[in-house]
Amino acid sequence: MVDVLPASPSQEKLRAELFAHGLLIDSGVPGVVGQGAAFVEVLQRVDAMVTKLAAVDRPERMSFPPVMPRSLLGASGYLRSFPQLTGSVWSFHGDESAAAQQADRADRGEDWGVHQRMTDVALVPAACHPVYPAMARRGPLPVDGVTIDAGAALVFRHEPSEDPARLQSFRQREIVRIGTASTVLAWRNDWRARANDMLLGLGLDVVMEEANDPFFGRSGRLLAANQRAQALKFELLAHITEPNRTAVASFNYHLDHFAVQHGIALSGGEPAHTACLGFGLERIVVGLLATHGLEPAHWPATVRTALWS
Amino acid sequence: MVDVLPASPSQEKLRAELFAHGLLIDSGVPGVVGQGAAFVEVLQRVDAMVTKLAAVDRPERMSFPPVMPRSLLGASGYLRSFPQLTGSVWSFHGDESAAAQQADRADRGEDWGVHQRMTDVALVPAACHPVYPAMARRGPLPVDGVTIDAGAALVFRHEPSEDPARLQSFRQREIVRIGTASTVLAWRNDWRARANDMLLGLGLDVVMEEANDPFFGRSGRLLAANQRAQALKFELLAHITEPNRTAVASFNYHLDHFAVQHGIALSGGEPAHTACLGFGLERIVVGLLATHGLEPAHWPATVRTALWS
Repeated sequence: MVDVLPASPSQEKLRAELFAHGLLIDSGVPGVVGQGAAFVEVLQRVDAMVTKLAAVDRPERMSFPPVMPRSLLGASGYLRSFPQLTGSVWSFHGDESAAAQQADRADRGEDWGVHQRMTDVALVPAACHPVYPAMARRGPLPVDGVTIDAGAALVFRHEPSEDPARLQSFRQREIVRIGTASTVLAWRNDWRARANDMLLGLGLDVVMEEANDPFFGRSGRLLAANQRAQALKFELLAHITEPNRTAVASFNYHLDHFAVQHGIALSGGEPAHTACLGFGLERIVVGLLATHGLEPAHWPATVRTALWS
Repeated sequence: MVDVLPASPSQEKLRAELFAHGLLIDSGVPGVVGQGAAFVEVLQRVDAMVTKLAAVDRPERMSFPPVMPRSLLGASGYLRSFPQLTGSVWSFHGDESAAAQQADRADRGEDWGVHQRMTDVALVPAACHPVYPAMARRGPLPVDGVTIDAGAALVFRHEPSEDPARLQSFRQREIVRIGTASTVLAWRNDWRARANDMLLGLGLDVVMEEANDPFFGRSGRLLAANQRAQALKFELLAHITEPNRTAVASFNYHLDHFAVQHGIALSGGEPAHTACLGFGLERIVVGLLATHGLEPAHWPATVRTALWS
């Protein structure tokens, strides 16, 4: 088992309060929580704000389940770059006697993995991953490319933590832009401003920073440095707990990485470039609760109007 | 690898049409599909209809992620009764050299399971499962018990199939009733009528039947027979494709099974009983498309009014 990331005192306090008020529901496993009624409602309102903000892009709506073909983990490079975060799905393979042994082992608290085999699916690690093969299957795209609204997609990261803002299973409110390099870069930069304004309008203390993904190992440090040198990733970081800010939205330019991996071309055969943005919906809701208090009915009028108008 | 359940000619035809019209999006893995804009919209409308129909129960809203503590698979008895359907989640455990070996194996199309270890989480097999431990943690319930609306929860069943109405990952629109035996049984039976009326109102050709769960193996046959003998499970079956009807909603009475497993008691210490109902949202949408045609804009006025009013 991996080590559980410990919470800071301020994270531990917030986590206890969210559980005590029924906003989040403890499952016993760090980073796996249910949501109470008030949390669900605020999350849906933030989701709807993003939908409204995205309307000007006239995006095409798609929705993908929390599992995807396991082969995509390799094809996207994710398995090489972030092995520590992946989740593969296994299932039982055997006869009645093996099934009984497996259940007996589980009842005794023993390891029952010996009876499991890897299936063809894995958990979706980032909401944009299923979008690329879907667009590749469609054939050449219009010259202006496409904008895909993948909605509030459920993604998985294997990083058990006691920080209530770091979940293993969470909702990424995801939009993907595919087109020429200049088109997708302009779109990504425009959204940096739109998202910044939206979150400031909700009273969150956010700052925009260049960032990198958590590439694995020593060789990953070079990839992270490259990502920063090319300014491929920006994050909006909110002040939720001490000691550090928490990323609540990210704005990513992938050059032609995913388009080449999956074979996505524009109408004239030009190579496509891709960009995506993701709002961490649970993190934004936790940030709002930490900033404005645990009772949404008592939040400042400007915040309530922005969410419920 | 398990065998993929083959599609009947009528299922194969419907599947091809749903893909061709962009209603569903093929992933390459049987039973794992994306949803296009029109499919998403109808699904959200059916979801909203259930919410409206449930309002009289004044349910408490909760939402749970698609993964849950792995220990619940054992505690609920699911691992013993349905081992063939379970999904356990595994992740990488190793150093940089192991990570590189794993990625190389994946690139060569070889098995890379040797580098994976079982995590503490499993995919949720039925939307009610995370509800019971959450209610047990809350302590004794009111004498009338509680009604929990678990929303459109994502569940996983490892049964790859080419039938477009049999997905591995799908949305169960789930409500759970916990209370005395007579309370939960009356609630379950009341919902049988409510759901029947709702689906008939959408123009689906449905019938209500006693049913049993797909218990594993020869010993499972006895459990299935017991379930039928006690009339614990009913299903609404819709005519979607040939040759057989497809279950689109189920109404389940668990006696005190889950309450005992998880330690849920009523206010006076009486043992609680539980019941749940689940609408298979994707199956209902596929049924509507098969019945009324692939263009929701051209559906009969009564159906459109019921959904969009």
